[in-house]
Amino acid sequence: MNRLTVTEKIIAAKVSLGIRWSDVAAKVGLSKEWVTSACLGQMTLSMEQAQVVAEIFGLTEEEARWLTVTPYKGSLPTAVPTDPLIYRFYEMINVYGTTFKALIHEEFGDGIMSAIDFKMHLQRENDPNGDRVRIVMSGKFLPYKQY
Amino acid sequence: MNRLTVTEKIIAAKVSLGIRWSDVAAKVGLSKEWVTSACLGQMTLSMEQAQVVAEIFGLTEEEARWLTVTPYKGSLPTAVPTDPLIYRFYEMINVYGTTFKALIHEEFGDGIMSAIDFKMHLQRENDPNGDRVRIVMSGKFLPYKQY
Amino acid sequence: MNRLTVTEKIIAAKVSLGIRWSDVAAKVGLSKEWVTSACLGQMTLSMEQAQVVAEIFGLTEEEARWLTVTPYKGSLPTAVPTDPLIYRFYEMINVYGTTFKALIHEEFGDGIMSAIDFKMHLQRENDPNGDRVRIVMSGKFLPYKQY
Amino acid sequence: MNRLTVTEKIIAAKVSLGIRWSDVAAKVGLSKEWVTSACLGQMTLSMEQAQVVAEIFGLTEEEARWLTVTPYKGSLPTAVPTDPLIYRFYEMINVYGTTFKALIHEEFGDGIMSAIDFKMHLQRENDPNGDRVRIVMSGKFLPYKQY
Amino acid sequence: MNRLTVTEKIIAAKVSLGIRWSDVAAKVGLSKEWVTSACLGQMTLSMEQAQVVAEIFGLTEEEARWLTVTPYKGSLPTAVPTDPLIYRFYEMINVYGTTFKALIHEEFGDGIMSAIDFKMHLQRENDPNGDRVRIVMSGKFLPYKQY
Amino acid sequence: MNRLTVTEKIIAAKVSLGIRWSDVAAKVGLSKEWVTSACLGQMTLSMEQAQVVAEIFGLTEEEARWLTVTPYKGSLPTAVPTDPLIYRFYEMINVYGTTFKALIHEEFGDGIMSAIDFKMHLQRENDPNGDRVRIVMSGKFLPYKQY
Amino acid sequence: MNRLTVTEKIIAAKVSLGIRWSDVAAKVGLSKEWVTSACLGQMTLSMEQAQVVAEIFGLTEEEARWLTVTPYKGSLPTAVPTDPLIYRFYEMINVYGTTFKALIHEEFGDGIMSAIDFKMHLQRENDPNGDRVRIVMSGKFLPYKQY
Amino acid sequence: MNRLTVTEKIIAAKVSLGIRWSDVAAKVGLSKEWVTSACLGQMTLSMEQAQVVAEIFGLTEEEARWLTVTPYKGSLPTAVPTDPLIYRFYEMINVYGTTFKALIHEEFGDGIMSAIDFKMHLQRENDPNGDRVRIVMSGKFLPYKQY
Amino acid sequence: MNRLTVTEKIIAAKVSLGIRWSDVAAKVGLSKEWVTSACLGQMTLSMEQAQVVAEIFGLTEEEARWLTVTPYKGSLPTAVPTDPLIYRFYEMINVYGTTFKALIHEEFGDGIMSAIDFKMHLQRENDPNGDRVRIVMSGKFLPYKQY
Amino acid sequence: MNRLTVTEKIIAAKVSLGIRWSDVAAKVGLSKEWVTSACLGQMTLSMEQAQVVAEIFGLTEEEARWLTVTPYKGSLPTAVPTDPLIYRFYEMINVYGTTFKALIHEEFGDGIMSAIDFKMHLQRENDPNGDRVRIVMSGKFLPYKQY
Repeated sequence: MNRLTVTEKIIAAKVSLGIRWSDVAAKVGLSKEWVTSACLGQMTLSMEQAQVVAEIFGLTEEEARWLTVTPYKGSLPTAVPTDPLIYRFYEMINVYGTTFKALIHEEFGDGIMSAIDFKMHLQRENDPNGDRVRIVMSGKFLPYKQY
Repeated sequence: MNRLTVTEKIIAAKVSLGIRWSDVAAKVGLSKEWVTSACLGQMTLSMEQAQVVAEIFGLTEEEARWLTVTPYKGSLPTAVPTDPLIYRFYEMINVYGTTFKALIHEEFGDGIMSAIDFKMHLQRENDPNGDRVRIVMSGKFLPYKQY
Repeated sequence: MNRLTVTEKIIAAKVSLGIRWSDVAAKVGLSKEWVTSACLGQMTLSMEQAQVVAEIFGLTEEEARWLTVTPYKGSLPTAVPTDPLIYRFYEMINVYGTTFKALIHEEFGDGIMSAIDFKMHLQRENDPNGDRVRIVMSGKFLPYKQY
Repeated sequence: MNRLTVTEKIIAAKVSLGIRWSDVAAKVGLSKEWVTSACLGQMTLSMEQAQVVAEIFGLTEEEARWLTVTPYKGSLPTAVPTDPLIYRFYEMINVYGTTFKALIHEEFGDGIMSAIDFKMHLQRENDPNGDRVRIVMSGKFLPYKQY
Repeated sequence: MNRLTVTEKIIAAKVSLGIRWSDVAAKVGLSKEWVTSACLGQMTLSMEQAQVVAEIFGLTEEEARWLTVTPYKGSLPTAVPTDPLIYRFYEMINVYGTTFKALIHEEFGDGIMSAIDFKMHLQRENDPNGDRVRIVMSGKFLPYKQY
Repeated sequence: MNRLTVTEKIIAAKVSLGIRWSDVAAKVGLSKEWVTSACLGQMTLSMEQAQVVAEIFGLTEEEARWLTVTPYKGSLPTAVPTDPLIYRFYEMINVYGTTFKALIHEEFGDGIMSAIDFKMHLQRENDPNGDRVRIVMSGKFLPYKQY
Repeated sequence: MNRLTVTEKIIAAKVSLGIRWSDVAAKVGLSKEWVTSACLGQMTLSMEQAQVVAEIFGLTEEEARWLTVTPYKGSLPTAVPTDPLIYRFYEMINVYGTTFKALIHEEFGDGIMSAIDFKMHLQRENDPNGDRVRIVMSGKFLPYKQY
Repeated sequence: MNRLTVTEKIIAAKVSLGIRWSDVAAKVGLSKEWVTSACLGQMTLSMEQAQVVAEIFGLTEEEARWLTVTPYKGSLPTAVPTDPLIYRFYEMINVYGTTFKALIHEEFGDGIMSAIDFKMHLQRENDPNGDRVRIVMSGKFLPYKQY
Repeated sequence: MNRLTVTEKIIAAKVSLGIRWSDVAAKVGLSKEWVTSACLGQMTLSMEQAQVVAEIFGLTEEEARWLTVTPYKGSLPTAVPTDPLIYRFYEMINVYGTTFKALIHEEFGDGIMSAIDFKMHLQRENDPNGDRVRIVMSGKFLPYKQY
Repeated sequence: MNRLTVTEKIIAAKVSLGIRWSDVAAKVGLSKEWVTSACLGQMTLSMEQAQVVAEIFGLTEEEARWLTVTPYKGSLPTAVPTDPLIYRFYEMINVYGTTFKALIHEEFGDGIMSAIDFKMHLQRENDPNGDRVRIVMSGKFLPYKQY
C-alpha cells in the first residue's frame, strides 16, 4: 500500500458513490481547491481531516494514515500533459510565461511568485456569450536577497 | 530578418531606453498583459498598433510589419522551464493540474477552459506578511459536443 | 478499477463478440467517430448512452458509471507514435503544419481551429487507382482577442 | 546557401511585399495547399515553377535552383509543437488517433492512409455560431500484403 | 487479454516447444519474414492462418481471434534501440540515411520507398572470410504528386 | 572550418553544378553508395580520392584535406527522423526489428550483422504496378564469443 | 546584445585579466557566492553594483545596464549536466533526494526549503586525508498552508 | 522479491508504526541522514545493521538480507524531479551550478567534490523571520591528475 | 515467463544462497565477466551451461531453456544511468569519448573497436594510496571498407 | 572567444599541419591519452604546457590562456552518441554495466571506480585474426562510508 493506491481508491469510490468534490470539501471545512488536491494525492491532511475523508470514501484506518504522510507530489504522467484541459494551462505558460516574468519583475524586482504560500480559487463566470472559467491565484512574492 | 530578431531588438531597446511595459501598453491603449506578450513575440498587432510600438522602440518600417504577422508561438526555450519564476507556474500545473480538471468538469462537464478566448490580469496585492502577486485568469468554457 | 480497465474490457469484448464500431454507434445513435473515441476512453457518455454501451459489451453497473466520468485524455503511448497508420497523421503535421498555420492565418487572422468544437467524418472514397480514405474535419475558428 | 535560407528569404520577402499565398498559388497554377508547403520548404518544384516563385519573391537563379532539390522535410522545431494552432492538430491525433486506426482498419483492413499519395483542401465554412475551418484530407489506402 | 499477451504466450510456447520460425512459416504457407513478424505482434492474420498458428502454439479460440485484429505496431521498447543487433540497423540509418535519400531522389524524384507495399528477404551468404547476412528489401516507390 | 562546412559546400556546389552522385562515384571509381555517403560526411577518403572530389566540387586544398579525416558520424538531426523517406527506414526497424533479431539468431546464433563490414546496393526494380526501390544489404555476421 | 553576451564578455575578460571571483566580490562588497552567480548571469545587480563590475571587466554603459535586468535563469546547457563537478551535485539529489524530503518533512511538516530566500557558503576544509569542500546551505522553510 | 519491494515494505511499515527516521537512526547508531537513505534503498547495510532495521520494521530474514546487497541507486522517478521540495535542490544546481564550479576550481584547481566520500547534515535553524533548513555538505576534493 | 523473470529469479536466489559470481563462473568454466553478464540476461548459454546455472540457482527445466535463447540486450533502465558506479563509465565516455575516437583513428584508420568480438577482464590493483579497479578491454578493430 | 573556439582552432590546425596526437603528447611530456583529451577541451593545462601546445598549433597568448582554465566538460553532442566508434563504448555499458557493478561490489563492497583518479592507456594488440584495440583503465576504488 502507498499513497497512490489510496488516491486510486478514493477516485474509484467517488465514482461509485457519485459524490461531488465540493461536498467533500464542505465536510472537511476547507476550500474545494485544497481538499480536492489533497484527495488527489498532492497535499497532507491532519489526522482529523483524514478521518473525515476516510469516512466519506470508506477508507481503512491504515489508508487514512497515508493521507497524513506528505506525498511525493506531481500529478501528471508526462512532462508535457496530453489531456486537453490540462494542456491549455501548459500552453498559457508557453505563450504567456515570459510575459508573467516581465511584468512581475517590473512590479516587484527579482524574485518569484510562491507556489507554496499560494492559494487559488476557481469559479463560474456567467457570460451571455458562453460561461467562463475564472481562476484567481494569489501567491506571496519572494524576493531574491543579496548576501 | 524574422519575428525573433524583432523581438530581440525590442527587448534590447527597452533596456537602453529604460521604459516600462505598462507605459508601452498605455500608449498602445490596451492592457499591459496583452501588449507585453505581443512585444515578446506571442501576439499579432494591427498596423496602427505596430506603428506605435515601432516609434517607441525605434523599429524600421520593415520591422514594424513583422509585428503584424502571426508569430510561431511558444516563448520558452525548453519543455520544462528552468527559470525559477516561470517554473513555479509549471509546478502549479504539476501539483494542481488534476485538481483543475476535476473541479472544472464537476462544474461544467466535459470540455476545456479556452486559452484563446482568454484574458488575464496581474496585480500587486498588499499584505502585511509580504505583498502577494495576484493573477486573475478568465477563459471561456468550451464543451465537447456529441455528433 | 479505472477508465483504462473499462476501455480494455470493451476492446477485449469487441474481439470476442466480433462487433463493428459502426454498429455500436448506430445503437447509441451518434456518429461512429464520436462513439468509437468514447469507447476508446476519450469522451464522456451520458448515463443513458453508457447503459447502451454496457449492454453491448457486457459491462457491470460500476463499469458503466466510469464511462460517464470525464477521462484523462490522450490515447497514444508515446509522444511520437510508432504505429504506421497513426504516424502518418503525425507526419502530415510535420510536413504540412506550417502550411496549415499560414493558410488559416491568411484566411482568418490570429487564432486557432478548435479541437473541442470539432467534428470529423471518415469515409471510403472509391477510386479506380485504389480506394482512398477521406477525412473531413470541421472545427470552429477561435480568434485571439485583444484586451 | 541551403534550402532553409531560401525558405527564410521567401518568408521575409512575403512580409515585405504583402502578398497572399493564394495569389502565389494562382500564379504557379496549383492549389494553395501544395504551393504554400513548397514555399515553406516541404515540396519540390519543377524548374518552371521555381522560376515563377523566384520572380514573385525576387530570388536569384541559384536560389531558384534550390527549390527544385528535394528538401529534408519536417517543418516543426520540436517533437511536440508549441504553437497553439499547430498543437491543436497534434491534440487531434492524441485524442482521435486510436479512433482513426480503429475505423480505418474496420473499413479497409490492415494498412495505412498514405501521407504521400495525399491531397488536402482547407476552406472557410460559414456558420452563424462563428465560422469554421474545414479541412478535407484524401489519401490512398495502402494495404499491407502478405508474401 | 490483448495482443501483447498473445505475443508473449507465443514466444514462451516457442521456447518450450523448441520450434523454428521457418517451420511455422512453412505450415502457414508464407515467407518466414512475414510470419515471424505476425507472430511477434506486427501483422494481421486471416482466421485460417490464425488457426494454424494457434494449433502450433496451443492458443485458445479467443487468443487465435486476437491474431486477426490489426495490432498497434512498433516492436521496440525505446526510441533508440538498446539491443546490439537491432541497434546496428538504426546505425545504418544514422550513417546512410541521407545517402538513401540522395540516391532515391536522384533516381526517382521526390517521394518515398514504401514501408507498407514492402517485402524483405533475409538469408545466409557463405563467405570464406566469415558468413554474411544478406537482406534484400523491395518497396514500391511512391511519388509526391502536385495538386 | 570543419568537416560539416566542407559537406555543406559540396552539397551547395552540387546544386549549382547540377551533377549526379553516380557521376561523382564513377570518377572516384567506387560505388555510388559509398561515395555519396563520403561526400555527405560519413566516410573517410584517401588523399587521391579527395583530390578527385575536390576538383569536381571546386574545393580548396585545405577542404580536400578534411575529407581524409575520419568524421564524427551520424547524418540525422534528430533521434527519430522527421523526413518521410528516412522515417520509413526507421519504421521498418520499429515493425521488423524483432523479426530481424529472431531470424538472424535462428540462422546464426547470438551475434550481430555488422554495420561496419557492410555493403549496400540500391537500384530501380521495374514493375508494371509501379517501379520499386530495391536495396540489398550485406553485412558480416559477428558472433559473440565466450571467454 | 543580451544578458548572455554580457556574461560571455565577463568570462572572457576574467581569463584575460587573471582576476579571482573572490576579489570581484570584495570590490562589490558581497559574498563571493552571490557575486559570482550574478556575473555568470543568474542574479540582478543594482546600478551601483553593476558599475563596479563594469569597471573591473571593462564593460560599456549599455552592457552594465544589462546586469540590472533580471535574467532568464538556468546556467546549465542540458537537463542532466555532463560536467563531472556539476554532475556530482545532481547525483546527490538522485541518491539523497528522497532522504532530504523525508527528513525535512519529519522536522517541519509539509512544505519546502526555499531556493529563493536562500544563502550558501562554500569553503575549504583542511583534512589530513585530503582537503574537503564544505558547502553550507540555508533556506527558509516555507509551509504549505490550508485554505 | 528485490530491493525495491523491501524499500516499499519499510516505507509502508513506517506509516503503520508511526516511527521517526531519527529514532531508527539512533537504534542503528549512525546519523539520520545515512540511515534514512539506506532505508530508502540507496545505501548498503552490514548484516548487524540490517537485523536492527529488520526488527524495527518487521522484515523477514530474506528481506533483511536484501538490505546488505548494494542497490542500483537513484531514488527519483524522473530526470527532472516533479516534487516541489526535491525540485528546489535541482533548481539550486540549475542556478548555482556554474557558480559551484567556478568557486571550487578557483580554490582547488581542476577536480570534483566527491559525492562518495561525502557526508551531509541537515538541521533546523531557528529564525524570528521563520525557521530555516540548514544543510551542511562535506565532500573530499578529488583532483584530476596528469599522467 | 520470459528471460527477465528468469534473470530476476537468479538474482533473488543469489541473495538467498549467498553465492559469489566468481564461484558460479568457476562451475561454468568460463570467465566471471562473461558468466555474470549471461546470468544478468545479456548473453546466451549453451544447454549444458544452462544446466549448470540452473542447478546452482534452482531453476526449472523451462527456466533453464530461457537461458539458451538470445536475449533482447541492454541492462540499464534509463538512457543516462543513475547509479553512481555505472554513471562513472558513462562519464568516461562523455569526457574521453572524442579522445578514444581520435587515438583509435590515428592508430588504425577509419573503423571501430568491436563490442562483439570483445573481451574484458576486471581485477583489483593493490595500491598503497588505496586499491584500484583495473579493467582491461580488448576488442577487434573492424575497418570500414570501400566498395 | 571561449574554450570551444580554441578547441576548434586546435582541431583545424591539426588537419592543416598533419601532426599526430602522439607527437603532441611527446612534446608536452605526458601520455597521449591525457594530452589529447586536454587538446579536445576536457582537461586543464598548466601555463607551461599551454605554451607548448600553443606553439605547436599557432595559438595566440590569449588562446593559450584559455587552455589553463578548467573547461565545462562533456565532449559529446548527444546523450546517446551517434558516432559508431563512440557508440560501441556506450553499448558496452548498456550490455556490461550491471556486470561491472556486480563484480566491483563483489570484490570491493559498496562504492565506485573513480573517473577522476583515473588513468587509461590505449594500444594496438597484434593478432593474426585481425589486430585488436586494447584499453587498460585504472581507477581508484572509492568506498561509500557510513557516518
